[in-house]
Amino acid sequence: MKYELYYWPSIQGRGEFIRLALEDAGADYADVARRPRGMKTMFTQMKRNHVFAPPFLRAGGVVIAQTAMILHYLGPRLGLAPKSEAQRLWLHQQQLTISDWLVEVHDTHHPIASGLYYEDQKPESRRRAADFRTNRLPKFLGYFERLQRTKTVTYVDLSLFQMIEGLRYAFPGTMRGMERKYPKLIRLHDRLAQRPRLAAYLGSERRIPFNQQGIFRHYEELDA
Amino acid sequence: MKYELYYWPSIQGRGEFIRLALEDAGADYADVARRPRGMKTMFTQMKRNHVFAPPFLRAGGVVIAQTAMILHYLGPRLGLAPKSEAQRLWLHQQQLTISDWLVEVHDTHHPIASGLYYEDQKPESRRRAADFRTNRLPKFLGYFERLQRTKTVTYVDLSLFQMIEGLRYAFPGTMRGMERKYPKLIRLHDRLAQRPRLAAYLGSERRIPFNQQGIFRHYEELDA
Repeated sequence: MKYELYYWPSIQGRGEFIRLALEDAGADYADVARRPRGMKTMFTQMKRNHVFAPPFLRAGGVVIAQTAMILHYLGPRLGLAPKSEAQRLWLHQQQLTISDWLVEVHDTHHPIASGLYYEDQKPESRRRAADFRTNRLPKFLGYFERLQRTKTVTYVDLSLFQMIEGLRYAFPGTMRGMERKYPKLIRLHDRLAQRPRLAAYLGSERRIPFNQQGIFRHYEELDA
Repeated sequence: MKYELYYWPSIQGRGEFIRLALEDAGADYADVARRPRGMKTMFTQMKRNHVFAPPFLRAGGVVIAQTAMILHYLGPRLGLAPKSEAQRLWLHQQQLTISDWLVEVHDTHHPIASGLYYEDQKPESRRRAADFRTNRLPKFLGYFERLQRTKTVTYVDLSLFQMIEGLRYAFPGTMRGMERKYPKLIRLHDRLAQRPRLAAYLGSERRIPFNQQGIFRHYEELDA
């Protein structure tokens, strides 16, 4: 087993961005917390390696946390990033912006406290989600739309695929009204969906379905 | 001029984490947006280089955005990070956790929308700040306390110095009641404050004072 991924076993969450890269590359990996007694192993490794929060990756004696940093490490090893330092930094910069975007998605249903239930912060969620749909979502989509050009597939592309998937699940009405403004991103999404290993993964039981415990959640009152 | 830093000219904000590293290292740099017509230059460079948001750095033809990535790049060049890849990644991982922490500080006074005034989201801020003080702040402080051991000074240490400074400004009552639980972090802060170049910077006009437009803001009703 070359790579060990550690992440919460019942949601896509941040771990999914790593899974997509590993799966699309056909990498040999274990999704440790989904195996028997895997959660116990995860907590032991977290503590031992001073990991603040999952996901984290073990690979040849190294332990790496923070989604964007894991992808920065994996990218060239999986053939999903160029090897030059300047190009790797540019990809990492984009991935960090996706991380920022994802926090804002999460906070549409948890604007007050991640430790509380959505039901305990519904009015605040409504306000935050309205701002997200109107101001933040077009800003991020527009930014990545402008960066699109046909090129070799990278882990950033796979993460953008996941963002589109997640946003369609969480905000179907909003996305229906908005997608035509971002044709290059949608073409990227559709093109990636046809990659054989990615398609096989998406159709398998390894792909956890979107659900109401993850980062992308569908609450009708938060959609347009 | 070896380095050009681009950041909003009237706040410490995220740019301050870069400034502290440059200043402590005695680096030759320009704080571009604070010079005459600097804001215009900043917007031109942002657009040309596909920068999502300040801060960003220009250095020898390379343009780098995202605070943690700028520090990852600068660290070994300024003598504020080891040169080995494994150790650099470990520092970067810590810095990314500080970035996450900083977002949570910001959101104590802007839980609904960064585009609205604090005054438009006061009740929500009260709730979010209470959760931050009770749950999140001890989690982050405790994490970094456990990581402390005497060692060479890195850019992560300078960022932790800035976190302590900022938290004392924003949440003086909370910090007074809490600091004794994190003696190693406080010792680190005090030790760094005595470094000659850092002390000179902090006493200079280059150090923008904390204010109510930055990330760290003091609202009595959000403190304990």
